[in-house]
Amino acid sequence: VARPKARRTLQEFALIRTLQRTFGQGGPSIVQGMGDDAAVVAANPKTWYILTTDLLAQGVHFDLRTASLESVGYKAAMANLSDLAAMGATPRYCLVSLAAPSGRTENDIHQLYRGMMRACRRHRVRLIGGDTSGSKQGLFVNLTLIGTTPRGRALFRRGARIGDSVYVTGTLGDSRAGLSLLQEPKRKAARQRSTRLPFSRRRMLINRHLYPTARIQEGCMLARYRLASAAIDLSDGLSGDLHHLCEQSHVGAEIELAALPLSPACRAFASCLNADPVQLALSGGEDYELLFTVPHRNQPRLEHLARVRGFRMTAIGRITARRTGVMVKRPDGTRRSLPSISYEHFRRVT
Amino acid sequence: VARPKARRTLQEFALIRTLQRTFGQGGPSIVQGMGDDAAVVAANPKTWYILTTDLLAQGVHFDLRTASLESVGYKAAMANLSDLAAMGATPRYCLVSLAAPSGRTENDIHQLYRGMMRACRRHRVRLIGGDTSGSKQGLFVNLTLIGTTPRGRALFRRGARIGDSVYVTGTLGDSRAGLSLLQEPKRKAARQRSTRLPFSRRRMLINRHLYPTARIQEGCMLARYRLASAAIDLSDGLSGDLHHLCEQSHVGAEIELAALPLSPACRAFASCLNADPVQLALSGGEDYELLFTVPHRNQPRLEHLARVRGFRMTAIGRITARRTGVMVKRPDGTRRSLPSISYEHFRRVT
Repeated sequence: VARPKARRTLQEFALIRTLQRTFGQGGPSIVQGMGDDAAVVAANPKTWYILTTDLLAQGVHFDLRTASLESVGYKAAMANLSDLAAMGATPRYCLVSLAAPSGRTENDIHQLYRGMMRACRRHRVRLIGGDTSGSKQGLFVNLTLIGTTPRGRALFRRGARIGDSVYVTGTLGDSRAGLSLLQEPKRKAARQRSTRLPFSRRRMLINRHLYPTARIQEGCMLARYRLASAAIDLSDGLSGDLHHLCEQSHVGAEIELAALPLSPACRAFASCLNADPVQLALSGGEDYELLFTVPHRNQPRLEHLARVRGFRMTAIGRITARRTGVMVKRPDGTRRSLPSISYEHFRRVT
Repeated sequence: VARPKARRTLQEFALIRTLQRTFGQGGPSIVQGMGDDAAVVAANPKTWYILTTDLLAQGVHFDLRTASLESVGYKAAMANLSDLAAMGATPRYCLVSLAAPSGRTENDIHQLYRGMMRACRRHRVRLIGGDTSGSKQGLFVNLTLIGTTPRGRALFRRGARIGDSVYVTGTLGDSRAGLSLLQEPKRKAARQRSTRLPFSRRRMLINRHLYPTARIQEGCMLARYRLASAAIDLSDGLSGDLHHLCEQSHVGAEIELAALPLSPACRAFASCLNADPVQLALSGGEDYELLFTVPHRNQPRLEHLARVRGFRMTAIGRITARRTGVMVKRPDGTRRSLPSISYEHFRRVT
């Protein structure tokens, strides 16, 4: 079973923090170094460059038994585009490096590129550099994406203030439900109860897993109108990524479970499997939706602009003091603390 | 045996060309897309951004039996810095992604970073982004380096004109000699004739292989004073890289074998092994020296500036018409065509 792309183990997070502290550097035109979704460099008096890079390994971040090379390429590009969306950037350029084992044909590599380019074209991103070489075992793809924002208009993880509302775009948990469907045994008899799930719902969930959508337009709107005080994209899952945002903003948060946006397909999936859709929404990663915080005074404008543009944006809670930590409020009004759920934990839940 | 980093097979070159043609794109502010040492983007009216990315795979590009993690990191950074040097860029920022198998300790990762950062510090490059995750097998490192040149001052592979002189920096073949020494059997008795090589020479050659020097200052000088008409860095070896430069410039070249700059250590190595040092210089890759072409009128200025700054730059031939191809002139005055020697071929020669 492949670990969802951006899900890291707790040790990995600790290591990344140590590397940041030890080797991360500031400098004259560096607005943001390591520690956010992307780095920010002041390229000229009017423009910031936003840069992000991601390495995907076969068997760790993707599984070619459940995904085609074309969808792996598509998703790899979208995951990086999502990092730019979380910064409010307009994506511009892309560099790709690839290490492929000798068993891979030229056609395989083309499939992978075709997927990446399909995602990039949707956002008018240009492929400007590439490198292809060998690997002893397994396929490795690295993407570097570069976007721009007007100077001073990028969104960061830091910046959330007590009292701000917490929002998410789209719906949560679909991708994890889609992954579960992909990982089911091939034989119909062995598929347990999920066979009751209508085909259109199945397809929607699987599509959300294989072909996620980076919320580029939503991110640009938030940055352009200075609506959000902080933002992050949901790659690790709501609970994990909310913890990241709160940590960097030095705040706590309270999420209303009843407010979490769930798709009908996700609800149907959960009811077929007798599972809790709220758990999928909280801890299912790779939704690539945006999680962002909005000061009280910006809420009417946000709601108006979202309506006009047809963006789904749902208020799911509010920012609290750091000492209260990250909490969830159940529909019955009781509260519990929300752990930064790791993948291993999640696997036991479903 | 690890294949030298940048040595690609002929199939890989063919694939890269196909990908370029199929997916490479131009655009409003893209000065150079795929197909040179690095991509060039017009970041503002005064500055070009130069971007390069490279993925290194354990067992393919580096071999941890002959190199420490620290030296792997150092060399990975220098190889990317060398791409920027070939464009005449001043390096600025670096993004690193890493996939490490679970057997790697935090200390291992730190060693690798320490090496990268040592190379970066020498050129005041700042680490602004990083990503660390797991790998099923083997260590993978991807570096993205970003440099700048004043607008219009980057060097390209295209641009060499008939009659231009061909130059290289430093000396050639040392890195390949160093790799041979590293690959020797450990037991002294089995080391054949290379035991006669003095320790200081040994160390120099091994150092040139493990800790190459990117010719950043040399590249900046060439770009700043508009001295060179074309440039490339020597990663695949003189014969291969000269072919690349000639192909992109639509010219031929004639190299004087007697003029190739050889270090005393490389000569001593070759004489111990009864080998031809000129072969090492022609086909041993990973020297990370610059190969560049200089119009006749710029030669006096180049020679003067190189002398003043203490840069070793040697004229080794001249650019000819495309139809004559890439030739070498032997000391006895006879000529032969220079094949774009592949790694496999080279291995048979020594």
